[in-house]
Amino acid sequence: MTYPEKLNAIREQMKADGVDAYIIPSADPHISEYLPDHYKCIAFTTGFKGSVSTVVITQDFAGLWADSRYFEQAEEQLQGSGFELVKLKVQHAPEYIQWLGNTLKQDATIAFDEKLVSILLGELLQQQLAYKGIRFENKDYLNPIWTNRPALPKEPAFLIADTYTGQSIADKLTAVRASLKQYHADSHLISSLDDLAWLFNLRGSDVSYNPVVLGFALITPSQATLYIQHDKLNAADKATLSANGVEILGYDTIAKDLQFLTAESTILIDPKRNCFALYKLIPTSVNRVLETNPSTHLKAVKNETEVENTRKVMRRDGVAITQFLKWVKENVGKIEMTELSAAAQLSAFRAAQEGFIGESFNTISAYRAHGALPHYASTEASNAAIKAEGLFLVDSGGQYRYGTTDITRVMPMGNNTEEESIDYTLVLKAMIEGCKTRFPKGTCGYQIDAITRRPMWDYALNYGHGTGHGVGYFLNVHEGPQVFNPTATAVPVELGMITSIEPGIYRPGKHGIRIENLVLTVKDQTNEFNEFYAFEALTLAPIDTTIVKKELLEQSHIDWLNSYHEKVYTALSPLLNEKEKEFLKEMTKAI
Amino acid sequence: MTYPEKLNAIREQMKADGVDAYIIPSADPHISEYLPDHYKCIAFTTGFKGSVSTVVITQDFAGLWADSRYFEQAEEQLQGSGFELVKLKVQHAPEYIQWLGNTLKQDATIAFDEKLVSILLGELLQQQLAYKGIRFENKDYLNPIWTNRPALPKEPAFLIADTYTGQSIADKLTAVRASLKQYHADSHLISSLDDLAWLFNLRGSDVSYNPVVLGFALITPSQATLYIQHDKLNAADKATLSANGVEILGYDTIAKDLQFLTAESTILIDPKRNCFALYKLIPTSVNRVLETNPSTHLKAVKNETEVENTRKVMRRDGVAITQFLKWVKENVGKIEMTELSAAAQLSAFRAAQEGFIGESFNTISAYRAHGALPHYASTEASNAAIKAEGLFLVDSGGQYRYGTTDITRVMPMGNNTEEESIDYTLVLKAMIEGCKTRFPKGTCGYQIDAITRRPMWDYALNYGHGTGHGVGYFLNVHEGPQVFNPTATAVPVELGMITSIEPGIYRPGKHGIRIENLVLTVKDQTNEFNEFYAFEALTLAPIDTTIVKKELLEQSHIDWLNSYHEKVYTALSPLLNEKEKEFLKEMTKAI
Repeated sequence: MTYPEKLNAIREQMKADGVDAYIIPSADPHISEYLPDHYKCIAFTTGFKGSVSTVVITQDFAGLWADSRYFEQAEEQLQGSGFELVKLKVQHAPEYIQWLGNTLKQDATIAFDEKLVSILLGELLQQQLAYKGIRFENKDYLNPIWTNRPALPKEPAFLIADTYTGQSIADKLTAVRASLKQYHADSHLISSLDDLAWLFNLRGSDVSYNPVVLGFALITPSQATLYIQHDKLNAADKATLSANGVEILGYDTIAKDLQFLTAESTILIDPKRNCFALYKLIPTSVNRVLETNPSTHLKAVKNETEVENTRKVMRRDGVAITQFLKWVKENVGKIEMTELSAAAQLSAFRAAQEGFIGESFNTISAYRAHGALPHYASTEASNAAIKAEGLFLVDSGGQYRYGTTDITRVMPMGNNTEEESIDYTLVLKAMIEGCKTRFPKGTCGYQIDAITRRPMWDYALNYGHGTGHGVGYFLNVHEGPQVFNPTATAVPVELGMITSIEPGIYRPGKHGIRIENLVLTVKDQTNEFNEFYAFEALTLAPIDTTIVKKELLEQSHIDWLNSYHEKVYTALSPLLNEKEKEFLKEMTKAI
Repeated sequence: MTYPEKLNAIREQMKADGVDAYIIPSADPHISEYLPDHYKCIAFTTGFKGSVSTVVITQDFAGLWADSRYFEQAEEQLQGSGFELVKLKVQHAPEYIQWLGNTLKQDATIAFDEKLVSILLGELLQQQLAYKGIRFENKDYLNPIWTNRPALPKEPAFLIADTYTGQSIADKLTAVRASLKQYHADSHLISSLDDLAWLFNLRGSDVSYNPVVLGFALITPSQATLYIQHDKLNAADKATLSANGVEILGYDTIAKDLQFLTAESTILIDPKRNCFALYKLIPTSVNRVLETNPSTHLKAVKNETEVENTRKVMRRDGVAITQFLKWVKENVGKIEMTELSAAAQLSAFRAAQEGFIGESFNTISAYRAHGALPHYASTEASNAAIKAEGLFLVDSGGQYRYGTTDITRVMPMGNNTEEESIDYTLVLKAMIEGCKTRFPKGTCGYQIDAITRRPMWDYALNYGHGTGHGVGYFLNVHEGPQVFNPTATAVPVELGMITSIEPGIYRPGKHGIRIENLVLTVKDQTNEFNEFYAFEALTLAPIDTTIVKKELLEQSHIDWLNSYHEKVYTALSPLLNEKEKEFLKEMTKAI
């Protein structure tokens, strides 16, 4: 079936049902960012492979709403599909709702698959379109036309030992239950896969890059039930779960259990991370507390074991990065080197490290103008040859059995322009500004974001993405609740949180620069004014200084950089051979 | 009646009604910050004169919840009243709600005067105490015991000409109606007095310092009704209102009109700035859109006339401040000078300026340790003598017929300590950091706040108040929607907004330092990365540089300061006599 044929088939079903608009969100019943193949509905329908977008179909129009990261890719992939790109003004904003309000007639009908819509989005649609008297229907128009739709993943899952996680399942359940008590809640539904993985010390490979397992959980003060395909876990793991007070039921059983919640009881449910379909199964007699999953916060604050293991992983990952930088520098111009071959080489260096499981996301290996696309994914068609000129950006990360990494470095390949050098220096300055900031307890991500951007604003520069995201522990590379971006997300940056700091400058057609470290929130001094926190640099890898324009940095930035490089050398050199050590010495010498 | 007698009388009424807890908020039916005497309920009940607090009374406890600004004052004023101070952990947080939840029995009854509670607070109380099955009752227990309760103010009100406001009432109504359309609203209730004053080009003196008039408004696509005491306006002003399509009805008539809103129609109502009592009068068949008053935003973005007039006012105000600084410097140690006498002298200098109407708030004239109390109000009892040593902080402002000012300067009086000099320099550095920042369109106040604080965080210093507030145009000295503080208030800083920048350092028992300018958001450069904005310094008055430690500033701060002082001298010197000019020349000389 071609894309236009699919579109037609959807429209026929809409006509038959009297549906005026059909919405296809990018989500699964767990409101995941990375989707199992079974739920890659937008790629199936339109051919667009980007990770975030929304499709809206009426009889007269078929549009894909995507943000600026995907404009180029969407224009290309949607060609001939019958779908038009609608450019979002604000990233992640559901701007199609207003479009629907302006386009549809009074009392029209909108349909979507309620499994793919969060509670928040479901309620937002109803509220914002209430003035139009819109009716909503729950329809899956894809299944009937999706022959060979991939099955749900059947990959095995496994528990990781307390010695790796630093906390038993039973202890984690106790912590979640303490939160339930605060909310006066009698039950708690969890659909989000990272929360499940953390709570049950559970990992798997149901989704690319994210070591999660499809499932749900229902927690009460006395019971904890994990809903998961029975054959995913071996007997030993099942016994461990049982010993920690966890009952295991089938994946689909959650639907039935929700319908039998006690009348007048109270359920805690995260409106952003549960689907509308399950929400609607909860009896109307049950009170709902709509708040962030307690585990989201508990998970973000790493315990000592997790921090110590992450520090270890960072040394392993730093070795791989150092080897990679050396390989690029020494081989460019000598062997055939492309974006894809370089990425493969980096992957090989990582794979040789103890504990390595896989990549934490698809490596962004972007040469020259490709670097200006912040979410560029090299393909056979786009794959550029790397030469001894311009800038080469590599954003990559690893999943290790005891930690997750995410790092961006930019390699000046030679003959760099003045603009490249200035931009590189200012990105580095902003990155250091964020990393070196001291801040009072209670500071939120938007404050760190502003401080990081200021050195760029001084030069009338800016970047369209956030400054940083939370990172999981052998879990998702994007995990909340903390985020460093300009939006008003009132989540304080707490001790033990791991977050990225990754400012950038993007000049379309020319180059893209982003430098990224992961940082751990640690204690700084306490005085009469406040308890102050600071960031410890977790990422351990050299930052190329060859094109740094020292006169654009303040002494405090130079001091930070030199001290960071000293730390990198001290940490990595014992794990390197003589030649690598020599290379690292040169890369980390003081400026 | 003594305070304990009043407390007893309230408790007797509670007992008779079966009420378990009685709440007295600091508000009026317009949810004002500054209250007419008629609504100074907390001062009447407890003796506490601070501007923000909440009283909660049960049979076993009577408490006043106040934030750190008021701890000292409250401890003192509550002595022997029967009320205890409960210290707020977070400023403005309704922490007493949790206390009520923990203290009251299941199914208890809470009462308050619904005229004094915002919709937001009323709903919050209901939601957060739902788990306790609390019943709520509308009771005013003060009126029966408040003999000689001050009447509602009967001060005359007046319209200001379009030549001063830059926009006619009819044009403002058109702008508000455009917003109603966006919200699909058929009517709009306004209770907030600054919104009313702006919308109807109306001013008065019903409240100290704020030139507002008690009233309400109901706006529909075709009608605009102002509810106000009939005798407040003269015939000419009534005719002007009528010519602009405004009908005038009695102040109390609003209650009746709300009850007759059309079923199934939609009302736009600001939940923070309307009282619960009026809200409950709206028929249940009417849909409610709970959003910020459109006029709040329209009012904050000053038009060209308002900006030009404010610039003029700033020159007048700057002359008064310059004369005051000169007077203090030249007379200290020679004449008897106290906090109160100095404040009176400043007031006299302002009063001599053309267009001066009154002060925009009670002058904070705070010598040495008094400066460490950010909201210090000098009294006959506390009034300190000013000597030729230490620091003298003066935070003051004027209402002029064509603008409102607010400025803080700190005078080093002589023999200043190293700590005073360092603190002074770092406050100045932070103030300049905020004033000189360039920022992209869309930046919110919390980002400006973070950038302003960073130079202090570098030294592990901080301040407990916000960095800045919006300022009205011959209106309230505190006006939103924009605010520069650490909270997640997602209001962008727009072109034409006037906001204060006023960081500080407070060392209890020693000194307080705060330096404050008002700034106007103006266009900076636009490029491929963004449209950038910057701040124009509106306040024109010298900043004492005698104790500035230049080595703590970066060159960019020194450049800003010297260029600001040049501007101040150029703007003010034509309005000064020779001696004043000489003084200003010295005060504004480059460092």
